[in-house]
Amino acid sequence: MKLPGQEEFEVSSACENVPTGELENGPGSCPSPDGTSDTDRGDRGVPTDPLLFIQLNELLGWPQALEWRETGRWVLFEEKLEVGAGRWSVPHVPTLALPSLQKLRSLLAEGLVLLDCPAQSFLELVEQVTRVESLSPELRGQLQALLLQRPQHLIQPTGTRPCQGSAHPREASHNEEAPLKEQRQNPLRRKLPPGAEAGAVLAGELGFLVRPLGAFVRLRDPVVLGPLTEVPLPSRFFCLLLGPSTLGRGYHEMGRAMAILLSDRQFQWSVRRASSLHDLLTALDAFLEEVTVLPPGRWDPTARIAPPKCLPSQHKRLLSQLREVKGPSAQHGALAEDRHGHWPHAPSPELQRTGRLFGGLVQDVRRKALWYTSDFLDALHPQCFSAVLYIYLATITNAITFGGLLGEATDGAQGVLESFLGTAVAGAAFCLMAGQPLTILSSTGPVLVFERLLFSFSRDYSLDYLPFRLWVGIWVATFCLALVATEASVLVRYFTRFTEEGFCALISLIFIYDAVGKMLSLTSAYPIQSPGSPAYSCFCQYPDLGGNESQWKKTEPKDRDDISSMDLGLVNASLLPPPECARRGGHPRGPGCHIVPDIAFFSVLLFLTSFLIATALKHVKTSRFFPSVVRKVLGDFSSVLAMLLGCGLDSFLGLATPKLMVPSEFKPTLPGRGWLVSPFGANPWWLSVAAALPALLLSILIFMDQQITAVILNRAEYKLRKGAGFHLDLFCVSVLLLLTSVLGLPWYVSATVISLAHMDSLRRESTACVLGEPRSFLGIREQRLTGLVVFILTGASIFLAPVLKFIPMPVLYGIFLYMGVAAISSIQFTKRVQLLLMPAKHQPDLLLLRHVPLSRVHLFTAIQLACLGLLWIIKSTPAAIIFPLMLLGLVGVRKALEWVFSPQELLWLDELMPEKERNIPEKGLEPEYSLSGDTEDSELMYQPRAPEINISVN
Amino acid sequence: MKLPGQEEFEVSSACENVPTGELENGPGSCPSPDGTSDTDRGDRGVPTDPLLFIQLNELLGWPQALEWRETGRWVLFEEKLEVGAGRWSVPHVPTLALPSLQKLRSLLAEGLVLLDCPAQSFLELVEQVTRVESLSPELRGQLQALLLQRPQHLIQPTGTRPCQGSAHPREASHNEEAPLKEQRQNPLRRKLPPGAEAGAVLAGELGFLVRPLGAFVRLRDPVVLGPLTEVPLPSRFFCLLLGPSTLGRGYHEMGRAMAILLSDRQFQWSVRRASSLHDLLTALDAFLEEVTVLPPGRWDPTARIAPPKCLPSQHKRLLSQLREVKGPSAQHGALAEDRHGHWPHAPSPELQRTGRLFGGLVQDVRRKALWYTSDFLDALHPQCFSAVLYIYLATITNAITFGGLLGEATDGAQGVLESFLGTAVAGAAFCLMAGQPLTILSSTGPVLVFERLLFSFSRDYSLDYLPFRLWVGIWVATFCLALVATEASVLVRYFTRFTEEGFCALISLIFIYDAVGKMLSLTSAYPIQSPGSPAYSCFCQYPDLGGNESQWKKTEPKDRDDISSMDLGLVNASLLPPPECARRGGHPRGPGCHIVPDIAFFSVLLFLTSFLIATALKHVKTSRFFPSVVRKVLGDFSSVLAMLLGCGLDSFLGLATPKLMVPSEFKPTLPGRGWLVSPFGANPWWLSVAAALPALLLSILIFMDQQITAVILNRAEYKLRKGAGFHLDLFCVSVLLLLTSVLGLPWYVSATVISLAHMDSLRRESTACVLGEPRSFLGIREQRLTGLVVFILTGASIFLAPVLKFIPMPVLYGIFLYMGVAAISSIQFTKRVQLLLMPAKHQPDLLLLRHVPLSRVHLFTAIQLACLGLLWIIKSTPAAIIFPLMLLGLVGVRKALEWVFSPQELLWLDELMPEKERNIPEKGLEPEYSLSGDTEDSELMYQPRAPEINISVN
Repeated sequence: MKLPGQEEFEVSSACENVPTGELENGPGSCPSPDGTSDTDRGDRGVPTDPLLFIQLNELLGWPQALEWRETGRWVLFEEKLEVGAGRWSVPHVPTLALPSLQKLRSLLAEGLVLLDCPAQSFLELVEQVTRVESLSPELRGQLQALLLQRPQHLIQPTGTRPCQGSAHPREASHNEEAPLKEQRQNPLRRKLPPGAEAGAVLAGELGFLVRPLGAFVRLRDPVVLGPLTEVPLPSRFFCLLLGPSTLGRGYHEMGRAMAILLSDRQFQWSVRRASSLHDLLTALDAFLEEVTVLPPGRWDPTARIAPPKCLPSQHKRLLSQLREVKGPSAQHGALAEDRHGHWPHAPSPELQRTGRLFGGLVQDVRRKALWYTSDFLDALHPQCFSAVLYIYLATITNAITFGGLLGEATDGAQGVLESFLGTAVAGAAFCLMAGQPLTILSSTGPVLVFERLLFSFSRDYSLDYLPFRLWVGIWVATFCLALVATEASVLVRYFTRFTEEGFCALISLIFIYDAVGKMLSLTSAYPIQSPGSPAYSCFCQYPDLGGNESQWKKTEPKDRDDISSMDLGLVNASLLPPPECARRGGHPRGPGCHIVPDIAFFSVLLFLTSFLIATALKHVKTSRFFPSVVRKVLGDFSSVLAMLLGCGLDSFLGLATPKLMVPSEFKPTLPGRGWLVSPFGANPWWLSVAAALPALLLSILIFMDQQITAVILNRAEYKLRKGAGFHLDLFCVSVLLLLTSVLGLPWYVSATVISLAHMDSLRRESTACVLGEPRSFLGIREQRLTGLVVFILTGASIFLAPVLKFIPMPVLYGIFLYMGVAAISSIQFTKRVQLLLMPAKHQPDLLLLRHVPLSRVHLFTAIQLACLGLLWIIKSTPAAIIFPLMLLGLVGVRKALEWVFSPQELLWLDELMPEKERNIPEKGLEPEYSLSGDTEDSELMYQPRAPEINISVN
Repeated sequence: MKLPGQEEFEVSSACENVPTGELENGPGSCPSPDGTSDTDRGDRGVPTDPLLFIQLNELLGWPQALEWRETGRWVLFEEKLEVGAGRWSVPHVPTLALPSLQKLRSLLAEGLVLLDCPAQSFLELVEQVTRVESLSPELRGQLQALLLQRPQHLIQPTGTRPCQGSAHPREASHNEEAPLKEQRQNPLRRKLPPGAEAGAVLAGELGFLVRPLGAFVRLRDPVVLGPLTEVPLPSRFFCLLLGPSTLGRGYHEMGRAMAILLSDRQFQWSVRRASSLHDLLTALDAFLEEVTVLPPGRWDPTARIAPPKCLPSQHKRLLSQLREVKGPSAQHGALAEDRHGHWPHAPSPELQRTGRLFGGLVQDVRRKALWYTSDFLDALHPQCFSAVLYIYLATITNAITFGGLLGEATDGAQGVLESFLGTAVAGAAFCLMAGQPLTILSSTGPVLVFERLLFSFSRDYSLDYLPFRLWVGIWVATFCLALVATEASVLVRYFTRFTEEGFCALISLIFIYDAVGKMLSLTSAYPIQSPGSPAYSCFCQYPDLGGNESQWKKTEPKDRDDISSMDLGLVNASLLPPPECARRGGHPRGPGCHIVPDIAFFSVLLFLTSFLIATALKHVKTSRFFPSVVRKVLGDFSSVLAMLLGCGLDSFLGLATPKLMVPSEFKPTLPGRGWLVSPFGANPWWLSVAAALPALLLSILIFMDQQITAVILNRAEYKLRKGAGFHLDLFCVSVLLLLTSVLGLPWYVSATVISLAHMDSLRRESTACVLGEPRSFLGIREQRLTGLVVFILTGASIFLAPVLKFIPMPVLYGIFLYMGVAAISSIQFTKRVQLLLMPAKHQPDLLLLRHVPLSRVHLFTAIQLACLGLLWIIKSTPAAIIFPLMLLGLVGVRKALEWVFSPQELLWLDELMPEKERNIPEKGLEPEYSLSGDTEDSELMYQPRAPEINISVN
């Protein structure tokens, strides 16, 4: 069956995907990409049908006190009036009884259908509707008066919780003088896009009618029908369903059926273009063809179904009709193509090889130069202020945490001061020069791990660390330049999810292991006193007998209870605490002098508190509590808040917990070095050559870390208009790497999570927002200014550094643990590991499990676990520093997996590598068995994949 | 429309309520009452139609390699074959496309319908089906051969996770010699009840047919059709849907439609009794009338809907048909009646007043005496062993926790030893005598709170506690006897949810407050050393100079590093730790001697650990992980495991944390008293009279605590056959109260949670269990033996008491906190308090909120909060001991609320009090507005209310 104007239909209705599922993730992990569907809505310039707001007014109170009352409304989903509670229900998927649809059909077939009715007011409309009907003049008058009666609307303040006093919903007063004021003030109006039209359905039982009265009107020019609808929108459709009382609730259900029909995009499309009753009925029949039926004994029809995460695209409905015309082959082609579009690694044009030396870089520079002015002008929007605040807080949290950890890992060769300075300098420079200025440069987990290994290596061989590091930096910059020259970035397509997950899992595990390990090592520094242990004694001994006699006598306590400075009889000793003792010229003596009690367990408490608070606050974001603003703040600043809380707890008790070490003035953390690193120091000259070896490893790491992040940031679903700059970005990173090496500052690459958060805070969205549908995503405010300001502020914060010495280290370890746990929880690998622990019948209904036998899933997981184990073992040996090479080895393992798993399995478990992807589409992407067919899962395939991976732990 | 034999239908199909919602709760809080529906199924003796297992075999591989494959199966819900993954999907609500139902209808209308076909084998059946068809003999032969071909079944090991090796599902081999072996071994067979029949649907496209071939067969005598179905059940129905390939997936969907039809109880009922094609089509039309329709654009038809918590009762479907015949009044009566049956406080016959003195007690004794022998014989079942183990562990956990807390609250007047002894004696005696022997007697929260108040009162007035307590006990027993005599237990119906929640919330808050308070008080006992504080010094001073010279010289350390016993030069002092010092005749001197470092924070850690572990383990029960046995063990023994873990952690570190005090031998914890309490002690004689006043308060408390528990335990949904004994129970409690007072043991009443756990461990269930449906609940093994054995074991555990001194007090406080938090989380009041924090649009879709305006809900909550605040203030004043009176005052407040809230509102927020309930049904239970009508929520009203209240904190 082919509908007229099918092509036009395709455009107008392919835009209903509602990826609310995306909203469940944090801002960092997923900036709610709305897929391609939204592009269709606004950007293609094709005029689409206006959105329809449908309202059902019911006639109640027959026969005594007739009144119209709005009892339901629809945009995408249904909202019912809860009469008893005086509130609107939550939006839900509407359900119908089949007979009410059939009754509606017959009523329409017999009733009055006016298409392109020229009425200009509600009065005219009422006259038209009642005139043609075979009613006695008296009845007609009665009916007209009834129809013109003002309906009751429940206008509810939305968004925020109604305060206690005003919780009673304002019901419309019966004052006929001010018909439109409360309509105009209806907050619902702001949620509907401009140009939206209304459809009004009036239904009810009316005893004085002898036979049912049905009328369907399409107005030629939409007009506001007085107080008929709760929002003063111009009405396009009007439907009247009245009749004698034989049908019970029949008219209510028929009214709902009509409203649900009108809220269906395809029915709407047809009925807007219908030229006769026949067209109307055909559209209704087409609707009936497509409905989903739930059997009566297995589903409670009064249950409310929450809006689905992903609406069926109307594209699909078109295809199923196309199939009937052209046969299944047409559909397969279309499907495969569409799937392809959503593949996360579908090569973007920036990743096409030019074949010339530095060809990619030159192209990147050319492309970005065009936008350079707009990169500053586009920032002139208030939204950018809040973005700056948010990202600034996230950036300094990162700088503190990584700075603190680096300082500890490198014995002060790096430190918080270097971290602030480096972040500011490198970040600002990157924002000015980079291909993708939305990127936030940061210390990342992999680089931190490498630096730690490099430092312990140089310590083992008694090298002068910073000069050695300088040469590593020089070499890395060189290698990275070579990678830019050879356009190596295009190889990024070989990093499939398998590689990304291995990368992420290893780094996360190192984070978790280190956090717990450092925490435990505090218990050696501050040992716990077990009851049998001999030592919590310390006394103060004075050096010469009788020499300080006079001083001694002076300090004789007045109060004998002041036992700490008490006289020990004949001895030149007292029980003064060590600092006081030293001040008076004595020597603290005894095993208890160097012991600080209670610190070990208090540190554990701080550690657990900050970890748990950060985790809990992050979950607040998806909870039901608090208004959304509060939830967003608590969720977004979870680590800042957890850190503040830990510091507060620590300073409240005032214990001598180990604190972050910060130099008291603006100078490098390592004593005695200037801001420039000397090129050789105490190292032999040949070390500058030998540094090429670790530099090679670091280059691999930086390449992987930088480029995987860049690919994620530049995914199509973010609708970036100004293009990416993979080569230019890598070039900038390598230049900045050189600079920071010379200055002895930390190394920086793009950080996934914080950059995604940056993009998320710069989302452009349609201001109007239909009920039950998230705001539609228009793109990102791509500009260089927010990043620049963030890093200038970070630079200015160096002078805040002295405040940072109040941060206890256990709190930082707690945040560190939180980062590791959050990162490892976000990957699919973790979900598959969890499957190992679940009985088959309790496993969630993952698409993966619908298509791949469980044993194969487990095998894949086991291989990943084995790889991870191997990496861990290598990491624990003296050869630890070569782990970047091993990470790269994952690409090889993944390649080898093609011998073990079929392409279909890999498609579900991972993704396909470039060559395979080219070879497969015709055959491989087709469903593996004819019967499971396309109707099964193709819908779910349309969902854009969320960037589920926090590839950099940052 | 009236179906033939409507009355019979009512019985046969009113039995489909699936209260899986109940299963989400713990065993303690909810022993899965299945409402009245299950009674209908088995117990009324009316023969019901057998259960039908329906299987869809599809013809695949046309035209090359034709084979039959089972691709779907249905009992209550649908399971699909995941072809790619080689597994069955999770059971889900089947969905259909409407056209496939219509196509099926027309195919059946044109096709062959054989009702009461006498075929005795599959061969005969195939011949019958193919003979009447207008097929050429050649085609017929081909078709017969095809139909007789053996289908492929996916037989999956269920229940436990398939082990790695055998994860590949065994597919049927093509060996025709052993047709039934794998069918017989199919684990699915055990899940189907005896007498179940099969229905086979065969569908597919068959190119050599020129026109569709439909056949529907009802066999006169069900017969096993060889390897046709995966389980060797006798087949009753057989349906064949074959045709040329024009329809695409049409035959698959038509096959599903047929299977879903057959799985519908009402269709099944009709088709079992159909005598013609017309009846068949009428049944199909009736099905169509009842289906729920989801509009195409708003619901993805490929999404799978999880089985609902509550299936629509077929009763309802009957009613909706009745309405069409008799009008709405008939329905209302039926509904109101049915609702009534589920009211938790509907008075049971045991709660009818006799009007005679001790009349209720006499009746109770008479009724229970009849069952006394069977109370022991019924215990002869292996299930009772595991119940004993489970309840024994729970009982001693309770005895330890409450004993430890009582010991602390009463300075050792009560203690763990008394707790064990008292629990054993009172519990065993109660099990032998009580009206409801499933009740487990225990110390409960309210009584603990009262005892604590009583003790502090007697301490304030310098009374001799135990003699005073004895008189209180004597008076309480007297008052309770008076309550038994006057049949006061019938008043329990005035305790509505409002009272119960106030009771529970106050006690829970006291628990939480006490647990945290006791924990914090540990930090005063073991102060934290802040860095400036002077004191962590202690040295050992010898009494006389030179007197112990020889001894002193002897202990001169060989090693100078052994600083703890080092020579302090000329002084007669050393740094030996205090115990060692005392052993050598010295005196420890210095501010550090009495300080044990690290204990405070370690205690906090232990406290948090045990609380969090207990909470986490309880949640394991509802998680997806681990086989159900493991989950059950972890969940049920969460507090035992948390306690063990805390003890393990404590003994691993070996710190001197405060431990549970247990006497080293079998004697009362209070030194110097015998097992009998002296009647006066040091108290004045008139105190024995004055004790009547606190006794009155305690009587109120015990009455409330005991009777609310008793009402919950004896609810109709547990299907107890031997009846309750409210008066006898209270009589037993009062006698035991006297006994424990004389012996100086704790006081005991029935404990809700542990008694519910006891009942749950004794559930009788049907062994067969239909897929997707929980096992049907048949009743409880009511007997006296399990309880008796539990308490005998508890008595024997007194000799384990010395082991208990390894339990650190912070761990007990943690468990205490867990109990308080668990209890307060379980009540609806808490959910309503949470609503205060939720923006209206994020509030869950509670029935309550559908019917009561939010402001009224908040007002009700606010009144409850105010009452609670008032109770808390009273509790904090010296008048604390009168709090039982105030709890009783809640009944009055609730009565007064009838002036503030309408009966409808109270019906949703609370429940109705007896008089109101009698007055209301006609008018009040009717929906409050004609339009929201009965179709809205009546279904949900059928759900038996879960005993959501842990009224006693125990």
